[in-house]
Amino acid sequence: MNKTTDKKAAMFFANGCEEIEGLTVYDLLYRAGIECTKVSVTGSDEVVSSHELTFKCDTKIEDLNFDEYDMLILPGGMPGTVNLRSCELLCEKVKEFASSGKYVAAICAAPTIFAELGLLQGKKAVSNPGFEGKMLENGVELIREPVCQTGNIITSRAMGTSVPFGLKIVEVFLGEKTAMDLKEKILFA
Amino acid sequence: MNKTTDKKAAMFFANGCEEIEGLTVYDLLYRAGIECTKVSVTGSDEVVSSHELTFKCDTKIEDLNFDEYDMLILPGGMPGTVNLRSCELLCEKVKEFASSGKYVAAICAAPTIFAELGLLQGKKAVSNPGFEGKMLENGVELIREPVCQTGNIITSRAMGTSVPFGLKIVEVFLGEKTAMDLKEKILFA
Repeated sequence: MNKTTDKKAAMFFANGCEEIEGLTVYDLLYRAGIECTKVSVTGSDEVVSSHELTFKCDTKIEDLNFDEYDMLILPGGMPGTVNLRSCELLCEKVKEFASSGKYVAAICAAPTIFAELGLLQGKKAVSNPGFEGKMLENGVELIREPVCQTGNIITSRAMGTSVPFGLKIVEVFLGEKTAMDLKEKILFA
Repeated sequence: MNKTTDKKAAMFFANGCEEIEGLTVYDLLYRAGIECTKVSVTGSDEVVSSHELTFKCDTKIEDLNFDEYDMLILPGGMPGTVNLRSCELLCEKVKEFASSGKYVAAICAAPTIFAELGLLQGKKAVSNPGFEGKMLENGVELIREPVCQTGNIITSRAMGTSVPFGLKIVEVFLGEKTAMDLKEKILFA
């Protein structure tokens, strides 16, 4: 990878995650030259997705030095989202990042984790339609865009919005022009 | 997976493949209930993508019974495409499938494999812009759509057209309505 920034993202994978919602973002960040560490919360370096894809992460969450990172990214999927939610270390760090002004990002069912942690009270966000009830219960002001950025919290809706979600994250790190150039290069209409 | 058809696809992965171009299609087929066997041509069951993702395939090409399959799918990427092209068994089977009326599908750089094997002479197809010269050298009638189906040969252009490519393959197996319903369900705009 040709690094274009010293800033780094960490992406968290549990068993039962939707692999494409995470790996599409990982792919786009790689193309943009942004280091994205794939972090397993399974206790092993391997993860099995909700669609039975087995892939390797770079490290386990218990070995991660969160201080090195500028953004935490959570893919959705079931039961992947429940598994991320039940990881106490991850939830504690998400709260720390959000309150310290660092970025947190989630897609599909995973924005409900931010909602349940109280990070979205009275704030605009999006989630998968099947989880909007849980968002509303936690005081979220739901909108209907593919991606929503509210301050340092980025949310997106579903597998089909993975590319816009990834491009928004590229924009946060490297600016709008770089994100738009990448969109054109991958021929995303 | 809840199978919706007895027809099956096989997807071929070499080291240096673009993982998202393959895995997005795998994901969509899984959602649609179409079995898609991930086949490694590396000699191992593991593949390392051009973006340094390591993932597991279901089987190795030397152990695959091609007679069980209805479609062969080739993701692009470099040097993944060169590695697929140099796999004699794969190229032989692609020619067999194409001439027998079974489906073959490729995206990004991989349509050049079909072109070099003489399957696209005088036929409409698409590829990544960086490989259109090689397509033209082999008599392809280039068009500029995200996905092109010419008889039993399906081609697509780049990482950003992976979802339309996958939805076209779902359509071939299960019809246009199922593909459109899936597009809506994943919230692909």
